[in-house]
Amino acid sequence: MGSSSVSANASHGDDGLTNGFHPGNCFPETSESYPYRKAVGEIISCKAAVVWGPGEPFVIEEIEVDPPQKMEVRVRILFTSICHTDLSAWKGENEAQRVYPRILGHEASGVVESVGEGVTDLREGDHVVPIFAGECDKCTYCKSKKTNFCETYRVNPFKSTMIGDGKTRFFTASQRQPIYHFLNTSTFSEYTVLDSACVVKIHPNAPLHKMCLLSCGVSTGVGAVWNTADVEEGSTVAVFGLGAVGLAVVEGARVRGASRIIGVDTNSEKSTKAKEMGVTEFVNPREHSKPLHEMLNSMTEGGVDYSFECVGSVDVLREAFLSTHDGWGVCVVLGIHQSPRLLPMHPMELFNGRRIVGSVFGDVKGKTQLPDMVRKCMDGVLKVDRLITHELRFEEINTALQLLKEGKSLRCVLRL
Amino acid sequence: MGSSSVSANASHGDDGLTNGFHPGNCFPETSESYPYRKAVGEIISCKAAVVWGPGEPFVIEEIEVDPPQKMEVRVRILFTSICHTDLSAWKGENEAQRVYPRILGHEASGVVESVGEGVTDLREGDHVVPIFAGECDKCTYCKSKKTNFCETYRVNPFKSTMIGDGKTRFFTASQRQPIYHFLNTSTFSEYTVLDSACVVKIHPNAPLHKMCLLSCGVSTGVGAVWNTADVEEGSTVAVFGLGAVGLAVVEGARVRGASRIIGVDTNSEKSTKAKEMGVTEFVNPREHSKPLHEMLNSMTEGGVDYSFECVGSVDVLREAFLSTHDGWGVCVVLGIHQSPRLLPMHPMELFNGRRIVGSVFGDVKGKTQLPDMVRKCMDGVLKVDRLITHELRFEEINTALQLLKEGKSLRCVLRL
Repeated sequence: MGSSSVSANASHGDDGLTNGFHPGNCFPETSESYPYRKAVGEIISCKAAVVWGPGEPFVIEEIEVDPPQKMEVRVRILFTSICHTDLSAWKGENEAQRVYPRILGHEASGVVESVGEGVTDLREGDHVVPIFAGECDKCTYCKSKKTNFCETYRVNPFKSTMIGDGKTRFFTASQRQPIYHFLNTSTFSEYTVLDSACVVKIHPNAPLHKMCLLSCGVSTGVGAVWNTADVEEGSTVAVFGLGAVGLAVVEGARVRGASRIIGVDTNSEKSTKAKEMGVTEFVNPREHSKPLHEMLNSMTEGGVDYSFECVGSVDVLREAFLSTHDGWGVCVVLGIHQSPRLLPMHPMELFNGRRIVGSVFGDVKGKTQLPDMVRKCMDGVLKVDRLITHELRFEEINTALQLLKEGKSLRCVLRL
Repeated sequence: MGSSSVSANASHGDDGLTNGFHPGNCFPETSESYPYRKAVGEIISCKAAVVWGPGEPFVIEEIEVDPPQKMEVRVRILFTSICHTDLSAWKGENEAQRVYPRILGHEASGVVESVGEGVTDLREGDHVVPIFAGECDKCTYCKSKKTNFCETYRVNPFKSTMIGDGKTRFFTASQRQPIYHFLNTSTFSEYTVLDSACVVKIHPNAPLHKMCLLSCGVSTGVGAVWNTADVEEGSTVAVFGLGAVGLAVVEGARVRGASRIIGVDTNSEKSTKAKEMGVTEFVNPREHSKPLHEMLNSMTEGGVDYSFECVGSVDVLREAFLSTHDGWGVCVVLGIHQSPRLLPMHPMELFNGRRIVGSVFGDVKGKTQLPDMVRKCMDGVLKVDRLITHELRFEEINTALQLLKEGKSLRCVLRL
């Protein structure tokens, strides 16, 4: 686990659900028998971290989780991490997202507890990762090779109930008040109900405490390199913003055999880890007076082949765009940008042969592609360990949130 | 020649250079012996249409054309047409373009009169079309499959002299005052000197009076479909703006087997020709109250696969972008847009899976691809006849310009 701060001796909690864990080895490399409570067709009472209002601390409380309905799956979440999208929803940054009480969380791994009617590709005991960008495998989108959108189960930050009946599967234990869902997943709960299109079965020997990162951050970054940009061996790459997603881009580029990976961040402390992960040169724009793109252009004989914007700033986006080589440069946008600012470029600038393209969930078709990505992790081809900087108990979720807010963690994995 | 107004009985001119033409057959379907005056190593005196100031009428006058220098070619221009880029340069819309006296024109066909030192791929008598976007075949760009830019001979509207020595090859006959070049080509002259990288040898039996269109308009439109967008058989396409380039897009889409080609123009008179050329549905936005993209989205179950903006308006561009299908739609920008307006879209809109991309000269590598395009014209696969609406004598160039300005012509071919 390297330099990560592991709370190895933390207590197991007292819910009787974590008996499979052994002190000092609470994050096993592999496990074929993660614990879960089987309660087919019944309501399960368990703990969840509920948000009751924008910016209010998570409250770990007893909730009720209904059985999965038609084409749904109930999953015992074993590990979950926090991503900036959770942070944004927690703050209620977008008014339309302000639905409470709600269970956030979308980056996780777990075990199928039971499946609803009609589910044939998943069964009890399967090791799974949830995906917020589902794949139904039936719609025009899923059948197209050009997109990872699904007509029904695509990313929708405003959705807060199940597709099937428009209701929730979560309720307060005290009064059976509905608790709302989040991003097709809601993983800040010991048990959650998902549409089966949003659950990916992975290899049973894959280390689940790491695989949770494939639910979002790793897939987003690696997929942007492998799918969206389709970076070739020997290419030059620049990554703007070296958070977890940016470093996942670095990892994707390293595996693809990029000849140079230039990491750009205003925090020079990030250079050490970035270089460990494959960044060949680190640039802190604050340490230079020249415009960033001019600097990168001169470093790379006219610009990089691919740039990745992982910050969410239009100013950075412009630099990332102009840092690519004219004629063939591709700038991939991963950062979440605030409305209503326009794309910071003139139409005629497209005539310089640079392209700009967005990437959602790394253009990864979850059910189709994640099992192979998991396999690559198991084989040591794809290394995700360094992205996990902290491991805490689920009960410490507010601490984990604070770490992310303060930029102190890349990914903090919570054990449920 | 269909409905085109051919000045078939026009006089030959009196310069002794047009003896190969026969009255009533001045635009032969094929010819192996177009006339030219051979004057290797000598200055040639001939007629050219010179512009002496922004918006001033072309003056047909005697000029002197120097012999081609190293890696240059002197071409007897036989046919030339006028494109909006000539119109824009004639007006001097961009201050940096205001270089006078100048010989405009970039869409043409002709015969090689002589070649300079080092030219091995062209020789006297070759039938050729000039290309304003040259291909040296040696630089990093030319060796890349991703771009049609050439490091040295790319499009440069501000260039007005030869690359080799920074001087002009045109001079006034009276005082040997330099006359400036335009867009690597300067085809409004009976003789012109070009860098050999900007001259494409084509099949000797190709009808030169049509092939001049491949110098720009046809290649730009067809190439945007075949190269930039790479439209697949059965795709749905929308073309915004049905001028010559827009109709060339239509032709490219027709040949590729697009299932639907929706033509959009505010002038309903354009629908007849557009439908002749392959447009399956015509939409005049002025005849509808709904936003254009909403209309197209409902016509096509969510949007077209490919849209082409051939107008040069950011408002049209936004409609063209939003008219594409989410998930995989591609909007190709061909129109020339005025500075300094920004791209009319928000970064987050890229996350809907639509792409926007510019296309210069249809991403056509001239020397590599034009001979095949010419072949397709000869075989009747690619039909360009309908784009030629007028044919006039070179001396009538001011009339031709007027026709274009008033939107009365698509392409007016001038015979020199």
